Amino acid sequence: MAKSSLIGKAIPRVDAPGKVLGKTEYVMDLKLPGMLEGRILRSPLPHAEILSIDTGRAEKLPGVKAVVTAVDFPDLRYGHLVEDQTILARDRVRYVGERVAAVAAVDLETAEEALDLIRVEYRELTPIFDPLEALKPDAPRIHPEIDRYGVVFASIIKYGNVCSISSVKRGNVDEGFAQADLIFEDTFTTPMVHQSCTEPHAVVAQVEPSGKVVVWTATPAAFKFRDGLAEILGMPTNMVKVIACTVGGSFGAKNDLRLDPICARLAQKSRRIVRMTMDREEEFADGNPRHSSIIQLKTGVMRDGRIVARWARMVFDTGAYTEFGPAVASEATKQISGPYRIPNVEVEALAVYTNKVSCACFRAHGGPEPTFAYESQMDIIAAGLGIDPIELRLKNAVADGDIAPTGEPYRKVSLQANLRRAAAHVNWDSKPQGKNRGLGIAVGQWHTGGRAASAIVKMDEHGKVFISTGCVDVTGSHTSLIQITAEELGVPLADVQIVPIDTDSAPFDASSSGTRSTHNVGGVLRRCAGQIREQVLTLAAEILEARRDDLDIEDGRIFVKGTPERGIPLARASRQAFRASGGPIVASGAYPGGALPTDPQALRGLCFGTAVEFIHPVQVAEVEVDPETGQVTLHRLTAIEDVGKAINPICATGQIEGGVVQGIGYALSEEIVCQNGVILNPCGVPYLQPTARDVPQIDTVLVEDGQGSGPHGAKGIGEAPIIPTAPAIANAIYDAIGVRIKSLPITAEKIVAAIRESAK
Amino acid sequence: MAKSSLIGKAIPRVDAPGKVLGKTEYVMDLKLPGMLEGRILRSPLPHAEILSIDTGRAEKLPGVKAVVTAVDFPDLRYGHLVEDQTILARDRVRYVGERVAAVAAVDLETAEEALDLIRVEYRELTPIFDPLEALKPDAPRIHPEIDRYGVVFASIIKYGNVCSISSVKRGNVDEGFAQADLIFEDTFTTPMVHQSCTEPHAVVAQVEPSGKVVVWTATPAAFKFRDGLAEILGMPTNMVKVIACTVGGSFGAKNDLRLDPICARLAQKSRRIVRMTMDREEEFADGNPRHSSIIQLKTGVMRDGRIVARWARMVFDTGAYTEFGPAVASEATKQISGPYRIPNVEVEALAVYTNKVSCACFRAHGGPEPTFAYESQMDIIAAGLGIDPIELRLKNAVADGDIAPTGEPYRKVSLQANLRRAAAHVNWDSKPQGKNRGLGIAVGQWHTGGRAASAIVKMDEHGKVFISTGCVDVTGSHTSLIQITAEELGVPLADVQIVPIDTDSAPFDASSSGTRSTHNVGGVLRRCAGQIREQVLTLAAEILEARRDDLDIEDGRIFVKGTPERGIPLARASRQAFRASGGPIVASGAYPGGALPTDPQALRGLCFGTAVEFIHPVQVAEVEVDPETGQVTLHRLTAIEDVGKAINPICATGQIEGGVVQGIGYALSEEIVCQNGVILNPCGVPYLQPTARDVPQIDTVLVEDGQGSGPHGAKGIGEAPIIPTAPAIANAIYDAIGVRIKSLPITAEKIVAAIRESAK
Repeated sequence: MAKSSLIGKAIPRVDAPGKVLGKTEYVMDLKLPGMLEGRILRSPLPHAEILSIDTGRAEKLPGVKAVVTAVDFPDLRYGHLVEDQTILARDRVRYVGERVAAVAAVDLETAEEALDLIRVEYRELTPIFDPLEALKPDAPRIHPEIDRYGVVFASIIKYGNVCSISSVKRGNVDEGFAQADLIFEDTFTTPMVHQSCTEPHAVVAQVEPSGKVVVWTATPAAFKFRDGLAEILGMPTNMVKVIACTVGGSFGAKNDLRLDPICARLAQKSRRIVRMTMDREEEFADGNPRHSSIIQLKTGVMRDGRIVARWARMVFDTGAYTEFGPAVASEATKQISGPYRIPNVEVEALAVYTNKVSCACFRAHGGPEPTFAYESQMDIIAAGLGIDPIELRLKNAVADGDIAPTGEPYRKVSLQANLRRAAAHVNWDSKPQGKNRGLGIAVGQWHTGGRAASAIVKMDEHGKVFISTGCVDVTGSHTSLIQITAEELGVPLADVQIVPIDTDSAPFDASSSGTRSTHNVGGVLRRCAGQIREQVLTLAAEILEARRDDLDIEDGRIFVKGTPERGIPLARASRQAFRASGGPIVASGAYPGGALPTDPQALRGLCFGTAVEFIHPVQVAEVEVDPETGQVTLHRLTAIEDVGKAINPICATGQIEGGVVQGIGYALSEEIVCQNGVILNPCGVPYLQPTARDVPQIDTVLVEDGQGSGPHGAKGIGEAPIIPTAPAIANAIYDAIGVRIKSLPITAEKIVAAIRESAK
Repeated sequence: MAKSSLIGKAIPRVDAPGKVLGKTEYVMDLKLPGMLEGRILRSPLPHAEILSIDTGRAEKLPGVKAVVTAVDFPDLRYGHLVEDQTILARDRVRYVGERVAAVAAVDLETAEEALDLIRVEYRELTPIFDPLEALKPDAPRIHPEIDRYGVVFASIIKYGNVCSISSVKRGNVDEGFAQADLIFEDTFTTPMVHQSCTEPHAVVAQVEPSGKVVVWTATPAAFKFRDGLAEILGMPTNMVKVIACTVGGSFGAKNDLRLDPICARLAQKSRRIVRMTMDREEEFADGNPRHSSIIQLKTGVMRDGRIVARWARMVFDTGAYTEFGPAVASEATKQISGPYRIPNVEVEALAVYTNKVSCACFRAHGGPEPTFAYESQMDIIAAGLGIDPIELRLKNAVADGDIAPTGEPYRKVSLQANLRRAAAHVNWDSKPQGKNRGLGIAVGQWHTGGRAASAIVKMDEHGKVFISTGCVDVTGSHTSLIQITAEELGVPLADVQIVPIDTDSAPFDASSSGTRSTHNVGGVLRRCAGQIREQVLTLAAEILEARRDDLDIEDGRIFVKGTPERGIPLARASRQAFRASGGPIVASGAYPGGALPTDPQALRGLCFGTAVEFIHPVQVAEVEVDPETGQVTLHRLTAIEDVGKAINPICATGQIEGGVVQGIGYALSEEIVCQNGVILNPCGVPYLQPTARDVPQIDTVLVEDGQGSGPHGAKGIGEAPIIPTAPAIANAIYDAIGVRIKSLPITAEKIVAAIRESAK
């Protein structure tokens, strides 16, 4: 089909009515007969040995139906790449808020009362909160058993408390720096920040009479949850069913099991349905926020602006357990060179244990931290060389045919064009009018994901289309997927629906995270729909006594292209197919995932490629800074987004605006404050997410070059928009008032202090 | 596969744990947040015009959230083949208990109170309760609009109140009777009987924010319900989702919409979730029981026992509305000739309106009534001719190559063999010892069903198998379906599951009724599993470096047939498939249904063929009758069942025993008593279903000739066992004490009266 009526159409999200009307049900809204409430006993200490746990009095409290501790789970360790965590603390607690025991009771009050009755005897151990302190060879070890990883990472033994090391190496940085005209060296820091989803973690678990465990939970990764639960509960995978409920925000926060195995075990032990919900305080104490980082960055450049060498050492504070630390460190080593052509690179990232909450995934994990560093430094270099920041970036920007330091090839790159688009859009050459006003630009690099996805599509006897896929809708992707399918089949949007997802009935999907749903599942659906289309058209050709190639479908009607009045409703053909076979027309398909090739010499330690293709967002911030108060006013944020093709501009723009707003919070206000291991947000110290009042005019420019590998040339877009926002704002602040803040968030206090310092 | 390890294995039903433990949840157990209770206002009169309905006071009652009457539904008529019924009574009520209005309120008490506040003004019309009275040309018309059907059925105009006429004609009965040595003419009557399911009708309806109506209901025909609801609610079919819940007994009672559209409309109007449940009194007043019948039967025979002519006129009291009347009448015309070779046949059946509850489907609809008549008369003929009853039946029994009066051909018939098996099993020639003891035999004929069914099967990355099918388990069929699939795939039973059914995610199934689930869906699953097996073995051949044809699968392990130690777990092959594609292995298939050819000259009126193949159950009853009290003691009931292949002997035997027990109730005790249009059971007059105490030794003989057209040679078995029980018992009573009761149920009173009459 040359024409395209539904692709690119700004259709309201299919989940909009429920959300707008407040009628959408989340896990925490579930009320099932006889349901118990579960609560968790958490560690009050950042680091301690558990000498004993006495649950006797709690168990005897009327209304208490089950109490679980570590002994109710197999003595196995879990974690992403590094397995160091148990479901409930076994011998030791390593952060304030760590899960020690759990209770299921007839109501919340009884459950809370039971928690008070559990006696845990601790022996306090020296805690470590600073990752640089933790790295010292003689620092007390948070995971004494970590030595077993020493075999894999010989370099770990020179440090204490290393969870993982990743590095990327290309060329020879020593030679590079020797060759450079100028060397810039800066240290940047970024804070621990929280996803702060509207919906907290919640789960309901039920044990069926057959023993099968059914879990209602909100996650983009239902199959990962199912497999994890089956392992933890010691059951075959088909004896656990995960029902993927509406996700009220994830941004990575719901990618991993949290309450689920505890809730399932409580349900098994109590033989009752159990619900568990985390309150806002628990979300902060025991969520899985973005790692804080300390980034040392050294760049060698020639006078003409060409970068010739980059060295970096990044320390990510992963907290008490691995969670997603190694993946974040790995990603950061790939990010820190930016989308720039640098011949000599040697960069290293460490995930380091401290006695704080474990950090994990947050939108574009391992992206915004290094980008803040390298894009801030790009402007420092531009200023140092007296080159325009865009000019400097254009000079180094990768293009088709270039190879990243990881060995990954660049193809169909639009970075240079996007930089020029940005310049044109904001009228870069005539800087903003007004005192203390500034413009700042930053680019980013992200990858569209490459993990497995699949779908089964049925067209029924009425011509209605039902899609079964494991792909959870966390970002509006279902609306785009429906558009893609309806377009391919030539049916109205209302004739296509995606059925609710559970792991028994849906086909596999790795996760609706990693910027991949529309790219991966959209492609699968387009192929499935194409197969169904062929069957329907073949049948219609018989009915219409026409050649199949002469037929087309539009708005649910099949017709002869030359004589459009000769036609039949599509439903008649699907009905005919049904009568002949006795069932619907079914097509299934899958996407295997994959990654670009990497250079095995370049990637070291726990470092791995994940890109299927690269995308390059560009953002420009326009700010005004009050030098007296340090107050930053954002006037405009322009986001040039490399979307390939916006299947649905509403969804695409919504994702981008959301990312930019999260980026603004990251830049200016958000920070989890931890004092002696105790997280003070959100109850003591407010957690300053941007509100509507803090959001400036956002100009979203969808760059539709149709060059993506997804359906209709689409690229993944979900994570990228958060990446360049903070450095764009930092650069704009510098442009406005000439002070450079290298530590996020850029608070008024830091600006005032910097102004005072620079005035000295 | 030559070997067969799972087929024929007596595996406990997969639904057994929940049912045995009392943990299975039925629709009426559903409790959803904010759920309202719905109740129905029913007609107190058997026949009346509705002058007005005033719901004003009810609507104002606090706690009432919605009231609906006929005007809340489109003015359309519904019914099977004859459309004469509205969802709620519109202008007229035609039976006591007819649905007039409905209320949804915060609790049952409020709903009941609201019903009392609805004022309905009636003008009474003359009711008719006797179908023979109703047939008189000058009888008042229950459906004055029925004349429109007169065009279709010219013969109706000579009768009053005919819902439908069916007839079958072959040869020339006048010539046949002229040729006959003897003519036997008898009139038999059978009562209206009730399915009396353990679970009453219940439904929960919810309207999603998108407007989609979701209905939880217990029915074997979820797709039929969905389409019916969509029509009634005036919505596209994909805006109605039927969730097929556990069925606590159907036997035909749950084949048709009852509460569902009312509940859905209440949910739409109240914007709340609504639950409706019928109590036991409503089940009797407004269920859809088996038709009562009056059967005039005339048979001409030669002295050697050969039947040469049959004439019959059957009147089925269909009650106030069509429901399933025409189908019952149609079936009866095909049944009444029995599985006997009769050259001249002219039989007619009428469904007649009266002012009673509408009758519909009950296990083997239209089967037990004519079978009671013709098999009772066979023994009358045997006695008249002095021929042994089995001998007489053998002489006339159909065999391969014979053609039924309908034109349907007999193939792979085992009736004669089954008669001999019966004789051998009960030692027929040496009649039972003891005074007033008797043996009676009866045969039956039923057909295995021919409507559409389909399934989608996925084998996932762990080698686990999930089946999606619209086929609801009402008889244990899911256990057999799992066996068939596991056998074909060579995996353990525990690795195969059938996912819960809803009309969005499941592929189409016509209905789990009509003796068809294992036959139709089993065949589809065998083919789907075969496709998956091929894919898995092809992959395994690569892994094992063996020829695909040299491989076999057993208990989840693929191995080389000659060297079984060379093998891999099946899950490894499925994992490999998953890695290559990114999704599960998926196979889908369907069964189009169908029917044997009929002779268009033979079938008249609303008469149609439904058989895909015939089955012939044979039963022998051994009774003892107390001539003083008329008390019948059943000593043994032998059921020779023509199952082809018992996929699961527990399920097969369970179905047969259940059918026999229902047949015993039909024979001896069950009867709905209706007085002036008011049904007196179960509250005034007890409804005497057999209890465990009433059940004799049942000898079930599974005849496994492997000749069925279903998977592994299986035939459908669900309905047939109820068919020959009543005439076998009637014949045994005659054999014991020499009195012939031609009217069911054969109560002690009737026996005593007959003994007294014969003694005169």
